[in-house]
Amino acid sequence: MKSPQRLRDIAELVGGRLSGDGECKVSRFASLEKALPGDLTYLESPKLLKELASTRASGVIVDEDVAVPAGLNVIRVRQPSVAWAKALAALCPYERLFHEVSPHAHLGTGVELGAGVGIGPGAWIGDGASIGARTEIYPGVTVGPGVAIGEDCRLYPGVHIYRDCRLGRRVIVHGGAVIGADGYGYVQEETADPAEPVVHRKVPQIGTVVIEDDVEIGANTTIDRAALEATVIGLGTKIDNLVMVGHNCRTGRHCLLIAQVGLAGTIELGDYVTIAGQAGLAGHLKVGDRATIGAQTGIMSDVEPGQVMIGSPALPAGLARRAYAQIEHLPEFRRQLQEIRKRLAELEEKIAAGG
Amino acid sequence: MKSPQRLRDIAELVGGRLSGDGECKVSRFASLEKALPGDLTYLESPKLLKELASTRASGVIVDEDVAVPAGLNVIRVRQPSVAWAKALAALCPYERLFHEVSPHAHLGTGVELGAGVGIGPGAWIGDGASIGARTEIYPGVTVGPGVAIGEDCRLYPGVHIYRDCRLGRRVIVHGGAVIGADGYGYVQEETADPAEPVVHRKVPQIGTVVIEDDVEIGANTTIDRAALEATVIGLGTKIDNLVMVGHNCRTGRHCLLIAQVGLAGTIELGDYVTIAGQAGLAGHLKVGDRATIGAQTGIMSDVEPGQVMIGSPALPAGLARRAYAQIEHLPEFRRQLQEIRKRLAELEEKIAAGG
Amino acid sequence: MKSPQRLRDIAELVGGRLSGDGECKVSRFASLEKALPGDLTYLESPKLLKELASTRASGVIVDEDVAVPAGLNVIRVRQPSVAWAKALAALCPYERLFHEVSPHAHLGTGVELGAGVGIGPGAWIGDGASIGARTEIYPGVTVGPGVAIGEDCRLYPGVHIYRDCRLGRRVIVHGGAVIGADGYGYVQEETADPAEPVVHRKVPQIGTVVIEDDVEIGANTTIDRAALEATVIGLGTKIDNLVMVGHNCRTGRHCLLIAQVGLAGTIELGDYVTIAGQAGLAGHLKVGDRATIGAQTGIMSDVEPGQVMIGSPALPAGLARRAYAQIEHLPEFRRQLQEIRKRLAELEEKIAAGG
Repeated sequence: MKSPQRLRDIAELVGGRLSGDGECKVSRFASLEKALPGDLTYLESPKLLKELASTRASGVIVDEDVAVPAGLNVIRVRQPSVAWAKALAALCPYERLFHEVSPHAHLGTGVELGAGVGIGPGAWIGDGASIGARTEIYPGVTVGPGVAIGEDCRLYPGVHIYRDCRLGRRVIVHGGAVIGADGYGYVQEETADPAEPVVHRKVPQIGTVVIEDDVEIGANTTIDRAALEATVIGLGTKIDNLVMVGHNCRTGRHCLLIAQVGLAGTIELGDYVTIAGQAGLAGHLKVGDRATIGAQTGIMSDVEPGQVMIGSPALPAGLARRAYAQIEHLPEFRRQLQEIRKRLAELEEKIAAGG
Repeated sequence: MKSPQRLRDIAELVGGRLSGDGECKVSRFASLEKALPGDLTYLESPKLLKELASTRASGVIVDEDVAVPAGLNVIRVRQPSVAWAKALAALCPYERLFHEVSPHAHLGTGVELGAGVGIGPGAWIGDGASIGARTEIYPGVTVGPGVAIGEDCRLYPGVHIYRDCRLGRRVIVHGGAVIGADGYGYVQEETADPAEPVVHRKVPQIGTVVIEDDVEIGANTTIDRAALEATVIGLGTKIDNLVMVGHNCRTGRHCLLIAQVGLAGTIELGDYVTIAGQAGLAGHLKVGDRATIGAQTGIMSDVEPGQVMIGSPALPAGLARRAYAQIEHLPEFRRQLQEIRKRLAELEEKIAAGG
Repeated sequence: MKSPQRLRDIAELVGGRLSGDGECKVSRFASLEKALPGDLTYLESPKLLKELASTRASGVIVDEDVAVPAGLNVIRVRQPSVAWAKALAALCPYERLFHEVSPHAHLGTGVELGAGVGIGPGAWIGDGASIGARTEIYPGVTVGPGVAIGEDCRLYPGVHIYRDCRLGRRVIVHGGAVIGADGYGYVQEETADPAEPVVHRKVPQIGTVVIEDDVEIGANTTIDRAALEATVIGLGTKIDNLVMVGHNCRTGRHCLLIAQVGLAGTIELGDYVTIAGQAGLAGHLKVGDRATIGAQTGIMSDVEPGQVMIGSPALPAGLARRAYAQIEHLPEFRRQLQEIRKRLAELEEKIAAGG
């Protein structure tokens, strides 16, 4: 925080109800576990309730109805983690570094810049690109010709946006992300040369990428341009680092794609789809609204709305948990099968002999 | 397309046989599903044949011998998808952005440039590098000292090529790809310090990377330099985004490495090897010509030519499909084993009692 | 090597005992398999001992006590691979490209530079950053405001370090790595809009990243800044390419994280932990000292010190090898179960009939 804040003011800021000393000041944000006097913290989960007894924090944001130790200053709200995020955003706001266009930036012709655009040294903006008001472009970013970027976006160093892609408003793109590279599209062309009977001929990727408002894209993630139309990242979707979104994919609104997820081409995700780390989806699939796909899961066919899929190969979560839990018992299954067959053969013999 | 084209001219362009109105003009490329009047499309697969009845496209590229609805303008060719790629390449050609060396590019000493080389502002070319005719280098690219790049290559923004690597002709490298970083090579050195009994000592990686002609490399892919000789990407090989190629690997010609594949060190791939997304190969392996490795597969030993491997652990595809399909039945296997053992014990008892 | 070296001098350099012709000169390093006259090589593993009979190398670094063919020049040491790395480092030393601050670098205000710092053209150093003596910063690197980098570091092209992160001494960061991007932190905020009942509100990530001494970080790897305190990479840890380290993680000293590994948030690794390629760890876990996690493994709970875990889901290595090896037998298990149940029913019938 820039300056110490009274708990009373923080309570007002987050729309909470103060209980305790409203004049008490805090000057740092800290985790419940590590908080010291002078720190503000929050109760991330009701499971941590008993930690409140020993906390040294000067203030804690908690649920409306939890019982707290006497003497503890708390701010009661309906969603503590949301109030925490609001307090952080208000008291440790992002500070823009670039408020103007650096004389060392490289701008093409016909570039349209909104009011308050900041462009760092060494960034390159291609011909005919347009950049909305207050958008900040760090050094080392490249924005291809014809790209349209909305207002209040932030492109961190080393972001590369290929020609004609479109970003909405309040889009944040982290370092090294590449938006609009050619989709992986080749056709197998037969040749007359027996030494090279087939070559992979490139299919020009003439589509683009459309990133809707309020999307955040992680470091070194890649989102390929469509073969023909547009790869679309829906409103409010948050993408982690090192994710691959193939050409022609369309995510719904408010999806979560966690680190190292891979979407092959032409996948359609509904709204509120969550895909956990390192999961992969084969091409030409649909995933329904609110479906969840677990970490390292391999999806090879459509997923129904609301379904939770786990494992590679993927199974519905309940079944997956029971089924994959058996793998460690497989050596025992094998032994039992051998033993059963032996006993069964003995029985059969006995009965045959006795019959 | 830049201007509307007569179907007659497109037929000639792709070497096809026109059936229908050759004077009809098209001005856009579209998928079969979304095509409107004025659009050219193609029949990607015979499975979509019945879609032809309802298409609104003005022209469709189809197989030589399929039956098409009366009144539909078609261009008949032997490989429709190849003709489609050719038409796209001819009518929506890639447009170079950089035809000259920007005064804001940073060139070292002794750099050799072929005719028509284009280098964008902010790119850096190290001492003694050579760049072939008509090669285009976008802003934000770095080319280390001693690198040799062939003719007609294209390095998109943020590509980094370390010293002494070599690229052939017509190589395309997408944004953020890193070629020639040090391989992951350390030796465990024992020390006399009981608190740190071993440290990982770096093994200098004095080899290079050689990329042969007609290779395409995806965004944010990394290809490490060899420890001693060269990591080699064979002619015509196409590599997708976020792929890791470890030091000393050699791919054959015309391989396909799909997104997020990982090759550990010293792997040898034959020609026409396909490795699907997120698959991983352990080090020091050989994969024979025309082998195929499925998505998320984990390869721990050599793969024979032509073999198809699936799963982690990997199995030959036929077996893999049957075997992995049993995982969901494992809870049932367990129940059956319990039941069988119970019934067997009862039988044994009965027979013992009756004997 | 820059100039031919006498074996006698190399023996001295690596602290070895020469046996053979000490005046013999070598001028190249080569693998045992490919070495020619004039080459130095080494015996990587005792398994390759018989290769010594046919090697054409002019000198071989070997273990102290192995028997070698008569007439072969050898340098005997306790750890041949360590001696090999030392010889490479001494005779093929890394050559710095940048010894000064380029006039085309972009430096903010209040930047502190140690003696002999080299900064390439187009690099950007934010306000108040400090860079230790002899550290080399390639073109296209960005160093955010307030970042502190120690002595003798090397940042390859396209490395991006966000504000306020700290790097120790002798840290090497390869091209495209992003250090200090925002951790993936959102809270689900309920809204009054039934069409969008929940939005993902960003939690500002106000922590940093601390990279300790002697760490090496691979190309296009991402290490996210902490939500509150610091993501820490411990001394001597070596990270390969395309690795994801989530916010709040702490690795111990001398860990090895191999390519495409993913660590979710708030993971604690002990010292000497090894994680093989494409493995993934769920958040909020602890991994004990000297634990090893196999390739493609999925870790969902804590790992004890020294434990070796394999598979997804992960099992202790011994069990994992036996258990996963059964997967290919599952179709046979199924057949046996069917057959057993049939034979059992027949027996039961016979006994019932006979009883």
